Amino acid sequence: MEAASEGESRAIAFGEEQEALVVRSWNAMRKDAADIALKFFLRVFEIAPSAARLFSFLRDSNVPVDKNPKLKSHAMSVFTMVCESATQLRKKGKVSVRETTSKKLAGTHLKAGVIDEHFEVVRFALLDTIKHAVPAMWCPEMSAAWGEAYDHLAAALKEEMRLLSSSS
Amino acid sequence: MEAASEGESRAIAFGEEQEALVVRSWNAMRKDAADIALKFFLRVFEIAPSAARLFSFLRDSNVPVDKNPKLKSHAMSVFTMVCESATQLRKKGKVSVRETTSKKLAGTHLKAGVIDEHFEVVRFALLDTIKHAVPAMWCPEMSAAWGEAYDHLAAALKEEMRLLSSSS
Repeated sequence: MEAASEGESRAIAFGEEQEALVVRSWNAMRKDAADIALKFFLRVFEIAPSAARLFSFLRDSNVPVDKNPKLKSHAMSVFTMVCESATQLRKKGKVSVRETTSKKLAGTHLKAGVIDEHFEVVRFALLDTIKHAVPAMWCPEMSAAWGEAYDHLAAALKEEMRLLSSSS
Repeated sequence: MEAASEGESRAIAFGEEQEALVVRSWNAMRKDAADIALKFFLRVFEIAPSAARLFSFLRDSNVPVDKNPKLKSHAMSVFTMVCESATQLRKKGKVSVRETTSKKLAGTHLKAGVIDEHFEVVRFALLDTIKHAVPAMWCPEMSAAWGEAYDHLAAALKEEMRLLSSSS
């Protein structure tokens, strides 16, 4: 899958510095990544409680949200994919997700009823969580680098969702 | 207009203490209320940038968002209405908006394309803004009181939107 419309319409100036900002903060968070990822999604639900209803594994579970293993796993996937997107952007100037993965992800997100507003809240929650996880290294440039990596990943997923939606 | 479904489905225990928490913080913010209200909506757009596109007076304007007089005025209306809702809840156990006002508000919000997710982001931004405006007096009870006042106001508006939408 190629980087999608929203990503491609803007100039991509994602160089070694931008990648380094993401990777440096990622390395600082790595040992607590699972906890931070979980905080990230709890932050999403704090801002938009109804977003929790999009997750079948939360709807169908009696386990408290913050103990749900599938939420932890989903949160870690998003967190690591954004980090990996930074490296892809620096290397190739675009975000690619393996075709099988991207189609599956697009299908799941479409079926769940994910809309643009959700991508926005997730973006805000991601940056806000990282800011609180590594306050000493947080700076506007780091925020911009993570934001850019997220935007390209989100654009790629949204484009795949659009294709899937128009083909069905 | 009567308090609406979402509000009525929960027990309303909004007494003098709850009202006092809202009014006390409101009084502390009063002299800067216009600035705080503006921050509140800038926070909404920080979390959900696309929400800015719902406002015709932002779409059609060349003035920077934070200088837009109509945004300031809208933000102040929401802020004061939530505060007034607290007093109504304590006095009458429900939120009432004058009929002409509520119909007009419902029409504007429906036409703009406001959805439940927007109400959630606005709620989060409201509480977060007040928390930062009066950090010394902020506490879980104050958060709950403002949240409750907001929820009842939002439920009243959403119910009016539902009625308007089903009648057209």
